[in-house]
Amino acid sequence: MSQATTRHETFAQLKGKLLLVGCGSIGQAVLPLILRHLDVSPDRITIVTADSRGRDVAAELGITFIEQAVTRENYRDLLGSHLSAGDFFLNLSVDVSSVDMMLLAREKGALYLDTVVEPWGGAYFDPSLTPSERSNYALRESMLALRRELGKGPTAVSAQGANPGMVSQLLKEALLIVARDTGTSHTQPTTREGWADLARALGLKAVHIAERDTQVSNTPKRVGEFVNTWSIDGFVSEGCQPAEMGWGTHEKGLPHDGARHPMGCDAAIYLNRPGASTRVRTWTPKAGPIIGFLITHNEAISIADYYTVREGEKVVYRPTSHYAYHPCDAAVLSVHELQGNGWQQQPEQRLMMEEIVSGIDELGVLLMGHAKGAFWYGSQLSIEEARELAPHNSATSLQVAAGVLGGMVWAIENPAEGIVEADELDHVRVLEVMRNYLGPVTGAYSDWTPLDRRGVLFSEDIDQDDPWQFKNIRVL
Amino acid sequence: MSQATTRHETFAQLKGKLLLVGCGSIGQAVLPLILRHLDVSPDRITIVTADSRGRDVAAELGITFIEQAVTRENYRDLLGSHLSAGDFFLNLSVDVSSVDMMLLAREKGALYLDTVVEPWGGAYFDPSLTPSERSNYALRESMLALRRELGKGPTAVSAQGANPGMVSQLLKEALLIVARDTGTSHTQPTTREGWADLARALGLKAVHIAERDTQVSNTPKRVGEFVNTWSIDGFVSEGCQPAEMGWGTHEKGLPHDGARHPMGCDAAIYLNRPGASTRVRTWTPKAGPIIGFLITHNEAISIADYYTVREGEKVVYRPTSHYAYHPCDAAVLSVHELQGNGWQQQPEQRLMMEEIVSGIDELGVLLMGHAKGAFWYGSQLSIEEARELAPHNSATSLQVAAGVLGGMVWAIENPAEGIVEADELDHVRVLEVMRNYLGPVTGAYSDWTPLDRRGVLFSEDIDQDDPWQFKNIRVL
Ligand SMILES: NC(=O)c1ccc[n+]([C@@H]2O[C@H](COP(=O)([O-])OP(=O)(O)OC[C@H]3O[C@@H](n4cnc5c(N)ncnc54)[C@H](O)[C@@H]3O)[C@@H](O)[C@H]2O)c1
Ligand SMILES: NC(=O)c1ccc[n+]([C@@H]2O[C@H](COP(=O)([O-])OP(=O)(O)OC[C@H]3O[C@@H](n4cnc5c(N)ncnc54)[C@H](O)[C@@H]3O)[C@@H](O)[C@H]2O)c1
Repeated sequence: MSQATTRHETFAQLKGKLLLVGCGSIGQAVLPLILRHLDVSPDRITIVTADSRGRDVAAELGITFIEQAVTRENYRDLLGSHLSAGDFFLNLSVDVSSVDMMLLAREKGALYLDTVVEPWGGAYFDPSLTPSERSNYALRESMLALRRELGKGPTAVSAQGANPGMVSQLLKEALLIVARDTGTSHTQPTTREGWADLARALGLKAVHIAERDTQVSNTPKRVGEFVNTWSIDGFVSEGCQPAEMGWGTHEKGLPHDGARHPMGCDAAIYLNRPGASTRVRTWTPKAGPIIGFLITHNEAISIADYYTVREGEKVVYRPTSHYAYHPCDAAVLSVHELQGNGWQQQPEQRLMMEEIVSGIDELGVLLMGHAKGAFWYGSQLSIEEARELAPHNSATSLQVAAGVLGGMVWAIENPAEGIVEADELDHVRVLEVMRNYLGPVTGAYSDWTPLDRRGVLFSEDIDQDDPWQFKNIRVL
Repeated sequence: MSQATTRHETFAQLKGKLLLVGCGSIGQAVLPLILRHLDVSPDRITIVTADSRGRDVAAELGITFIEQAVTRENYRDLLGSHLSAGDFFLNLSVDVSSVDMMLLAREKGALYLDTVVEPWGGAYFDPSLTPSERSNYALRESMLALRRELGKGPTAVSAQGANPGMVSQLLKEALLIVARDTGTSHTQPTTREGWADLARALGLKAVHIAERDTQVSNTPKRVGEFVNTWSIDGFVSEGCQPAEMGWGTHEKGLPHDGARHPMGCDAAIYLNRPGASTRVRTWTPKAGPIIGFLITHNEAISIADYYTVREGEKVVYRPTSHYAYHPCDAAVLSVHELQGNGWQQQPEQRLMMEEIVSGIDELGVLLMGHAKGAFWYGSQLSIEEARELAPHNSATSLQVAAGVLGGMVWAIENPAEGIVEADELDHVRVLEVMRNYLGPVTGAYSDWTPLDRRGVLFSEDIDQDDPWQFKNIRVL
């Protein structure tokens, strides 16, 4: 049965209108899934976006396409008329403030979802801001402040894509698997505190969002071109933010270039350097031991915060958590060139989609320090399977789109929760939805540690007593 | 006129036989040039090599091809019978001791040339040796010890390819150009001391062998494959040696991981880490500011040694010198993967040759710290021009082959000099020969410094007073 004639299950009914802001790689990727599973017809959807990308897809699907950039000045007028109670505001743009959009959605009584806590354009590269002020930690704190201010109300899901997003749901399932496999007795957690206690009981020391994207095309990267499988602006922005990680209680000392933030939840630290120049050792089942970039991500902070155990005011347990990202090979080269040019963006961009000839996006969580060493749990979606599953997608975009769909379904089913993070969603329900688009979801234990093959030809400053110290993970 | 029917100028007459050991990318590349320009017929050439690579080329050219690995045990028997007085021993192998081959050549009265001071196989990866013992510094010292022992005799050119090799000759020409352009009065140097005085008079602080190889193919690097434009074994070996550099008198302090060697000329230091994990800022005219790997090379040490000025025993001037190598993009990825896998070599190798679709090898010397800032001088040979110039070549191999040819011509013309290094050859004559195969040889001044765009988004520990400190060059 061809895609066109397949009848797809309705996961939830979106009764109102849908406003989609941003129609780049993710916006285009998610549209087919929304049309299939949320019982919303194209005439109820409006797209507002800053450039012509996605115009063809919108036309093909019969969706209104407004090409106008959302700004601090125009957003109430431009977007407000498209939002009423019961509508859904899906924000998949770059350079548009998530916090302002959340507030607008709340005022209009609309549901809301984004995949990242985004600031207004320019903030990532503003040298008048400190690294701490340019961090995802600060952006998340601004979202948390709004949440405290607004309290309960129409649901707004913050940062629910693949990562941030899906990985928080995978982490919960992975914790339950490790608990089962290590015979750790526990009650099924039903609260944040319950989940944090479980992580602590397992002895979880560190979590990587461990990703290896092997998608390639036959057109080599050209000099002066940034090539990626998702937003190039998005990747460059986050790559130029400071490296950030949730900072575990097992860590013996701050990195030499590490610092705590002067405000907020204190679950994370940052390094005084761009994440795209910060490299870490990690492991995925198909790739084995690899080096990833420690790109800052919202989930690095939210996970560490969520899994914190306190006794009174005192933090007695918290895992280290961060991203360890091996992007597609062409993006590794693009980052190398970008850094060589003092972080001045290349004049050309190429977002690979149709031209991809092979590869998978192996994206999951790596749980380290428990009784069975290391356990990876995630999606191993290939480009071939992604294309079979949905049009306008690569393996990378489909994982994100699946996370968006799962989050939207949850929001529609739980419409009055106020602002929530990915860690707080019902992971069972969200995974049930996502699994339709993730390809093989696999778990694998490994005896890999970051001490493997260290200090062989050169002496190295490593901590032999605890493999899971960040000091051992980091590539210097 | 097709290549086959072009009549080529004889640069020097090789009267005896030619023994070529090793017939990989460089061996095959140099054969057409030797046949064209040294007046030697194929029946006077014998190839001894460890595998079948090059058998087809040898067959096509009518050259005897013996497939047998040279070992410590068999080399006198295997090679000795092919060497008599007046013959030429061209060593283009890996894993065969240069010093032992030089000694054999001397004993037989044969001329000799190699492109690297190579140890017997295994030494680069022997964890029982210290980093200093595995260094090119130590290998060069072993060659210098033999030279002291043997004194004058049949000429043996040590380490004359492109780099090491050609770049030493380019450096001399570049110094004269900078002297002219800065109006520095000097007498034409005729001795080592004279050249060192000139470098000092110019205020030369640092020299990079600055290379950007942009050659690409349409077949993307596969996972588990090391791809390069020249010897993969050679590159991995040198990449796993310690990073090494000639250490200039302007440097204010040793790097935190730097060390001096316990013996020898003391012109260089090493870092306690593999060169393939050590990155530096550099500049070439076409690429602009780029990041290269600080791979150890013989010339880094020989140049610093050659351009040392002493007053009595005291060293009063020496430039910093090292390699800053941006290999072809597929090799950058290969190194990233290799390091991720704890320096365990990939199971597959691919040496790109016919499949290259575009690109140049921009290889030259970058002279820094003189009155005009930075000056790059070198070859910008494209794959297209390389293919027009000679069969069995890429841009990379042809630059090396040109250096070999130049060195052989000089050795034939100067047959009784004993062991000599690239810095000691008559650069005018050698360049005259090489220029036939280098494509555009270009000079370019630049106001680039390693302080450009530093400390913009993150504070950095840089030396503002002297841009040319190694501390500023290094990427941490
Ligand atoms: N959580 C995740 O897993 C995940 C994964 C990928 C991307 N993302 C995020 O999703 C967002 C979109 O990613 P993408 O790959 O589609 O990016 P993209 O660069 O392909 O597209 C960005 C879109 O935003 C639009 N846009 C830019 N400025 C705008 C403005 N001022 N007003 C309205 N629209 C504007 C552009 O026109 C474009 O359509 C980014 O913020 C990215 O960080 C999250
Ligand atoms: N100075 C320069 O500019 C420069 C540039 C490139 C390569 N090189 C050096 O030249 C050498 C050859 O480079 P390549 O790219 O041709 O390498 P390659 O890997 O393509 O070929 C190496 C050759 O050595 C042969 N070999 C290996 N072990 C041997 C043994 N025990 N006895 C005899 N032959 C043996 C192999 O069979 C092969 O033919 C390497 O040492 C490399 O470092 C120097």
